[in-house]
Amino acid sequence: MASKISPLSGFPELLPEQRVVEREVIASLSRTFELHGFANIETRAVEPVDVLLGKGETSKEVYLLERLQKESGSASASDGGVGLHFDLTVPFARYVLEHAGHLEFPFRRFQVQPAWRGERPQEGRYRQFTQADVDIVGRDVLPFHHDVEVMRVMVEALDALPLPQLSFQFNNRKLIQGFYRGLGLPDVEAAIRVIDKLDKLPAEQVARLLVEDAGATPEQAERCLALATIRVPDTSFVEQVRALGVDDELLEEGLIELAAVVKGCSAASPAGVTIEANLRIARGLDYYTGTVVEIFMAGYERLKSVGGGGRYDALASDGRTTYPGVGVSFGVSRTIIPLLADGVLAGSRAVPSAVLVAVTSEDSRAESDAVAASLRAHGVSCEVAASAAKLGKQIRYAERRGIPFVWFVPDAATGATHQVKDIRSGEQDDADPATWAPPAEDLRAQVLIKEQPQ
Amino acid sequence: MASKISPLSGFPELLPEQRVVEREVIASLSRTFELHGFANIETRAVEPVDVLLGKGETSKEVYLLERLQKESGSASASDGGVGLHFDLTVPFARYVLEHAGHLEFPFRRFQVQPAWRGERPQEGRYRQFTQADVDIVGRDVLPFHHDVEVMRVMVEALDALPLPQLSFQFNNRKLIQGFYRGLGLPDVEAAIRVIDKLDKLPAEQVARLLVEDAGATPEQAERCLALATIRVPDTSFVEQVRALGVDDELLEEGLIELAAVVKGCSAASPAGVTIEANLRIARGLDYYTGTVVEIFMAGYERLKSVGGGGRYDALASDGRTTYPGVGVSFGVSRTIIPLLADGVLAGSRAVPSAVLVAVTSEDSRAESDAVAASLRAHGVSCEVAASAAKLGKQIRYAERRGIPFVWFVPDAATGATHQVKDIRSGEQDDADPATWAPPAEDLRAQVLIKEQPQ
Repeated sequence: MASKISPLSGFPELLPEQRVVEREVIASLSRTFELHGFANIETRAVEPVDVLLGKGETSKEVYLLERLQKESGSASASDGGVGLHFDLTVPFARYVLEHAGHLEFPFRRFQVQPAWRGERPQEGRYRQFTQADVDIVGRDVLPFHHDVEVMRVMVEALDALPLPQLSFQFNNRKLIQGFYRGLGLPDVEAAIRVIDKLDKLPAEQVARLLVEDAGATPEQAERCLALATIRVPDTSFVEQVRALGVDDELLEEGLIELAAVVKGCSAASPAGVTIEANLRIARGLDYYTGTVVEIFMAGYERLKSVGGGGRYDALASDGRTTYPGVGVSFGVSRTIIPLLADGVLAGSRAVPSAVLVAVTSEDSRAESDAVAASLRAHGVSCEVAASAAKLGKQIRYAERRGIPFVWFVPDAATGATHQVKDIRSGEQDDADPATWAPPAEDLRAQVLIKEQPQ
Repeated sequence: MASKISPLSGFPELLPEQRVVEREVIASLSRTFELHGFANIETRAVEPVDVLLGKGETSKEVYLLERLQKESGSASASDGGVGLHFDLTVPFARYVLEHAGHLEFPFRRFQVQPAWRGERPQEGRYRQFTQADVDIVGRDVLPFHHDVEVMRVMVEALDALPLPQLSFQFNNRKLIQGFYRGLGLPDVEAAIRVIDKLDKLPAEQVARLLVEDAGATPEQAERCLALATIRVPDTSFVEQVRALGVDDELLEEGLIELAAVVKGCSAASPAGVTIEANLRIARGLDYYTGTVVEIFMAGYERLKSVGGGGRYDALASDGRTTYPGVGVSFGVSRTIIPLLADGVLAGSRAVPSAVLVAVTSEDSRAESDAVAASLRAHGVSCEVAASAAKLGKQIRYAERRGIPFVWFVPDAATGATHQVKDIRSGEQDDADPATWAPPAEDLRAQVLIKEQPQ
């Protein structure tokens, strides 16, 4: 092992007590997804480059694989042309096409895996990062009610996590497109691209760009801005949009869909999640065709969105069959790593052990092992002291790892009883290794919320 | 999404019902490791190339990363020189050095992650594969009893899995080296390399190579073979080795250690795991310095070992401090994928849902959603039918996914009661969505063992 070791920028790693938090977040998300009938899959880490570049925009972020000792001439045929996936949507679409004959549609899956992007690292943006995605994919058709379902599942899943307040901000591409079309804008796509800049540029400048770049009249530009500034926590946006006096069939469809999503998600009565209709949300990627969502975290607006997704009428297609989908992705690393760094979240201890079984002498280690086996037999995680050091030293061994209890095995000669000590309170009691268990909150390492979420 | 989709050789993917098996295997391993106080970590997927090549032998298997759109001239400084890890030991050793200041030693960790090797794919050998590793690492020193501990943990962990009979075959490098030294062999390392060929070459040829390549006398070669053919399920090897009349301090130490490992692992009384001392096991990698083990699976000897590991007195070193370790690795993909392919293991269903809640009409979908929410509130995974098709069609929808129960929501007009039907038996009963739960074996997708392990 080389002696020069330094961190790799953009590839964060967690200490054991931090990993406790990440695992619990992933376990909690998985529990909610499974309660709603979503099946777990994993896709391989690599995809052919032409699959990765199918969406065009992301080419510069892809990591390609090269074999260190490739046979000259044969490399590109066997290994060349594959790269690491940069999200979980592209590999999922390929998985659906490749395995369609073995899947039942609508196919409801969740996937929690790392992805890789060769971009410049910054807070919340890493070169390796874990995402949690839920999607529902149909064959040929996918009824709209699945939009409500999948968004509500993510609302419930994130509501169950120990995070600062999250905000789901919904919009609908049909609503935007229909409004622009009904308004008579000459270039709907250009207008969407301009409106997308509202979080970076002042409103007047956006209005000017709508005129200059999207061919809008000043009056049209004003109504585009009026639409984009509607942001409400309920379905009152429907009346507000209608009051803008634009009439279009697609707009009407978008209004009905967005109202259904906002109502459906609010019906889950989340406590830690706010549901909003925010009519400036567009999401740049042009394959969204209906519902769109971005997720923000209170106090962490600098991370931009911590999740997002929407409806795509052609997630995948093999030429004969088209697979429409709707889904949403949550950035596990993007959310968790800044919260760990800021001390908002922490693991309660670095080890799973609730108990350290002390060792009186190396000759009696087998007796300590037997106590540990008894505790494990009824589900109590424990470890046996590494050495028969003085008891004070063994207690400090437990303390340094955050292990709350130390077990003292009686010396056969003295005929004393088994005792267990809570090293936080100093309280020490007789105990039976066959039945004793710690209080529920000490049984497993917990996620501690060090600052109250706002 | 491109329309030409075909599998990538060496990158196997699981269908949802197969992934049920892999997840349960990983969850079960993790439970055992945590009961024994091992902390979970994950390392990043990439390491600097000089770290990956530190062990020398594996250079041709490494996948390097290249950014697709690297800035010319700047690539190697920022991104170049990293590759995907090919096992979990090298990244763990680097993790220990990098984070030593934040870890407590002995550090007990488990790690379940994919690794990548650019080698030619075959059954049980993949280009991406998941391993489960447990290791204990000390700073400067690591008492021998941890050898017994870590091997016993893996015995217990694998004994809890639904696999064909496994065999742990232990040996000890001190025993081999001490025996050869005591015998007066001129080149101990060369002799180990020759004996390692016993599973490929007949004994007479190995004896000849010991003479020709390792400088042994015919009499020494004969005793080397006598040692290597000792294979017993208990500690009787100690007397058999002593009967060979070689006297050496290191040999004696090796005998005591190997006896302790065999005894300690047997004391776990595993039912599905056989414990053996097999004195021909050496493990090629030269950093092992004491205990060594290889794990084989009955009926799958063609996969060679499905796991292995041992003691290394210098897992990692930064020049000032040395970190000795002992650990063992289990090949999750190597074991599970052939068993899935052969139909030995299967998931009981493709979805987590225990219940499909039927939908009478799209107008009453909200009532079905409410039933689903009631069931989920007490931990029953379920999904609501995708369409208000005829009931027979909804039942077939459940059947195709392996969902065992269909829930019928009463029509408000008729005032009927809630009913749940076991679609396997056809039995149908009144039920209360607030309290009804399926039998325990139907609550979650299970691992089915289609052929009885031998």
